[in-house]
Amino acid sequence: MLAVMEGFLYESLASELGNAIDRGALRAGDRLPSVRRLAEERSCSVSTVLEAYLRLENAGKIEVRPKSGHFVRRRTAAIDIVVEPRPARPCTRPSKVTVNDAYTEILAAMRDPELVPLGCATVDPSYLPIQQLNRIVTQVTREMTTVGARYESPPGLLTLRRQVARRLVETGIALTEDELCTTIGATEALSLSFRAITKPGDVIAVESPSYFGILQNIQSLGLRALEIPAHPRHGFDVTAFEAALSTQSVRAVVLAPTVSNPLGSVMPDDQRERLVKLTRRHDIAIIEDEVYGELMFDGSRPRPLRAFASGDDSHVIHVGSVSKTLAPGYRVGWVAGGRWHAQIVRMKYGQSLACPALLGMAVAEFLASGGYDRHLRRLRSALEANVDRFREAIMSEFPEGTRVSAPRGGFVLWVELPANNDALVLHEQSLRRGIVVAPGPLFSARQRFSNCVRISAGVPWSDRIATAIRTLAKLIR
Amino acid sequence: MLAVMEGFLYESLASELGNAIDRGALRAGDRLPSVRRLAEERSCSVSTVLEAYLRLENAGKIEVRPKSGHFVRRRTAAIDIVVEPRPARPCTRPSKVTVNDAYTEILAAMRDPELVPLGCATVDPSYLPIQQLNRIVTQVTREMTTVGARYESPPGLLTLRRQVARRLVETGIALTEDELCTTIGATEALSLSFRAITKPGDVIAVESPSYFGILQNIQSLGLRALEIPAHPRHGFDVTAFEAALSTQSVRAVVLAPTVSNPLGSVMPDDQRERLVKLTRRHDIAIIEDEVYGELMFDGSRPRPLRAFASGDDSHVIHVGSVSKTLAPGYRVGWVAGGRWHAQIVRMKYGQSLACPALLGMAVAEFLASGGYDRHLRRLRSALEANVDRFREAIMSEFPEGTRVSAPRGGFVLWVELPANNDALVLHEQSLRRGIVVAPGPLFSARQRFSNCVRISAGVPWSDRIATAIRTLAKLIR
Repeated sequence: MLAVMEGFLYESLASELGNAIDRGALRAGDRLPSVRRLAEERSCSVSTVLEAYLRLENAGKIEVRPKSGHFVRRRTAAIDIVVEPRPARPCTRPSKVTVNDAYTEILAAMRDPELVPLGCATVDPSYLPIQQLNRIVTQVTREMTTVGARYESPPGLLTLRRQVARRLVETGIALTEDELCTTIGATEALSLSFRAITKPGDVIAVESPSYFGILQNIQSLGLRALEIPAHPRHGFDVTAFEAALSTQSVRAVVLAPTVSNPLGSVMPDDQRERLVKLTRRHDIAIIEDEVYGELMFDGSRPRPLRAFASGDDSHVIHVGSVSKTLAPGYRVGWVAGGRWHAQIVRMKYGQSLACPALLGMAVAEFLASGGYDRHLRRLRSALEANVDRFREAIMSEFPEGTRVSAPRGGFVLWVELPANNDALVLHEQSLRRGIVVAPGPLFSARQRFSNCVRISAGVPWSDRIATAIRTLAKLIR
Repeated sequence: MLAVMEGFLYESLASELGNAIDRGALRAGDRLPSVRRLAEERSCSVSTVLEAYLRLENAGKIEVRPKSGHFVRRRTAAIDIVVEPRPARPCTRPSKVTVNDAYTEILAAMRDPELVPLGCATVDPSYLPIQQLNRIVTQVTREMTTVGARYESPPGLLTLRRQVARRLVETGIALTEDELCTTIGATEALSLSFRAITKPGDVIAVESPSYFGILQNIQSLGLRALEIPAHPRHGFDVTAFEAALSTQSVRAVVLAPTVSNPLGSVMPDDQRERLVKLTRRHDIAIIEDEVYGELMFDGSRPRPLRAFASGDDSHVIHVGSVSKTLAPGYRVGWVAGGRWHAQIVRMKYGQSLACPALLGMAVAEFLASGGYDRHLRRLRSALEANVDRFREAIMSEFPEGTRVSAPRGGFVLWVELPANNDALVLHEQSLRRGIVVAPGPLFSARQRFSNCVRISAGVPWSDRIATAIRTLAKLIR
């Protein structure tokens, strides 16, 4: 009975505060009372206030700033659609991937902890349940003292595969743990998938712009990339792809239908279905990269492409990891290889033999504990608030003609600068000032997007970030 | 002064006990007094007795059996050389690698903890300093709470590379941490090396027999293998290789000069130098797999091939790991890529992006602590005793005509069965009885060695092992 009353209480508290925000009594940037103080004032429990705040967070009305408290969120400007970046023009022919000479240096800079990290697509450690994971690691070493002494042969740790399968089933993918193989992050999953499917010279269709790790694999395996335009909101352009197929045979298409990187786009359901059917008809494999799948701001989880082609004969390889949501440094990823699964498992033996069981166990334990969904709710709210804040700063500081994506999830922004800008030059200049951005040409096989940059909003807003954005604005012509 | 006296004391104690063993007063299998009891009897410190026992261990006179105490070792029979397996015949032409259909199943069985583990090339957890490593892991998570939250970009953790470089310099390789890249075990190091050096169709010279992980890489990359006979004691046959080069162009040679797998052979210094010169003249890359390099029974460490061709333009890629000596499950390995280093580092980005920093830190810390050499001394003694014990059991139980290698380090035995035996059939039959061995055809591109098996002596001798060896003997025709 008490629980029911408390239920009413947090709902009415949330609605009271929500109204105050809507009518302007609490304004953007205002700090809400601390959870403890409000609980005392209202004579209710701390958890009631927390629930009310969480509800407001999920409704996009307030945001948490780590170690600072709860604040009223800025509302996203209505000009979003007008200023989104323009889609790339279609390419009719595949090309070899040109990897920029400075590739390794740029990637290393992205992860230099001394620099303002607007380049790397990882979230700030303060958003991650690192302490809990550390505790689980310690606990595992105590309970299974010899965990470090054994190889966990492919397909890898059963408990982890079970937890992953359980979550994937909820998204609509009918699969069991037997259809999964654990990998060293999604990166190894992609690498193994490419190697299982292709032979040198094969043509791979990619989103344009596309995650550079994919392009680097295409390059190193001697494949060719066919860049298919991706729309900033709707992602991979199936119509353009179908048109390209009339003149071009394609071995595989690799894409991130749910929150692409760098666009943050989300493919509509009908286009997903259309793509799965089209590729089945043309005998083209799909590699679906869903590392951002859990990070839709509204908490929805569109049906993955694999859900439209289930079974162990599926032509859709599904790839995921916890690098964007839990612990990038644990390197825990997975692949559901469909009809290439046995081959992927075999290649995993030769590529890295086994994954570290200790870290897999820690992640499996965390997923089993039930705290993951609560963590994800908080993370999504924080990232959505960050993305808004970064967008606003970019729109107000960067010169006229700048266009910014309006991602529906994740935490990266794709920024199209006025045409006379060179992102590689901007990268160099900003690096000298201690700031890292990811230059656009990294996201294209042909080094297109020379006037675009990817800016990560994975860190909490701060004066340091504000200054960095202003510095970038000054460097841009 | 006391330390000096204690020094004399343990030397005289060791020599007294050694004499007792030599003249037969203590016989093979006899248990020595417990360390505590002997210390009391002789009114000396426990550490003096421990030092004396360690000295006897290193001299091969006694052995430690975990949780049982110190025992007088059996002396190796003098028939070693007579019964060693015969070297393979030279192949004049390269071939595609045929990977047995049952490959994945065999490898999975090798690591099934329920089975008698005579197949897998890892040592028993009781030989590894797992407790210490676990403690370090816990300590690292406490001191660097966010270690799991960051990518450790290639070339990987600096502290680990420094420790590895320090040890390699001691073996005669002049190199710095800048010439190393950390990898997911030696397996990834091999995989990246192959991918950096070769293109499909290239010919790779391998030892015959050779570690199956190497053959699997050759197969999956569309390369061809040229099997060069390896001598059970002296390893890779440089003369046969040179002869093959007169009719065959070769892109790379991959071998384990110090304690090969499965033979346990060690290349003489003059052959090492000859091979390095020969390959330089023919512009052939060398991939040197040194995962067993620390496990020579006599504690010596022959100069690696890389020491004969130092510098960042070296044509010798050097590969190592801690999987055979510290923690296979941590997946900590490394590669010194020589002239292909930049390419290997770049490929590492696309293949697995980063290694788990936490586990790398734990290994670096252990290496820095100075306990590694002491651990290695104990491990070598234990493994040498195991190898002797297993050899004796095999020689006395297996039918006449059986030949067994006499490895100079490591812990695997290569067993040539009488000609009418089929190792794959033996594998199947023994598996049904809960015993795993590694069938010979896994170690050849052409599935040679059909009457050979690799038997791992990495676990302490026990009744269970004795029974397993007898069961195998019964299954062999």
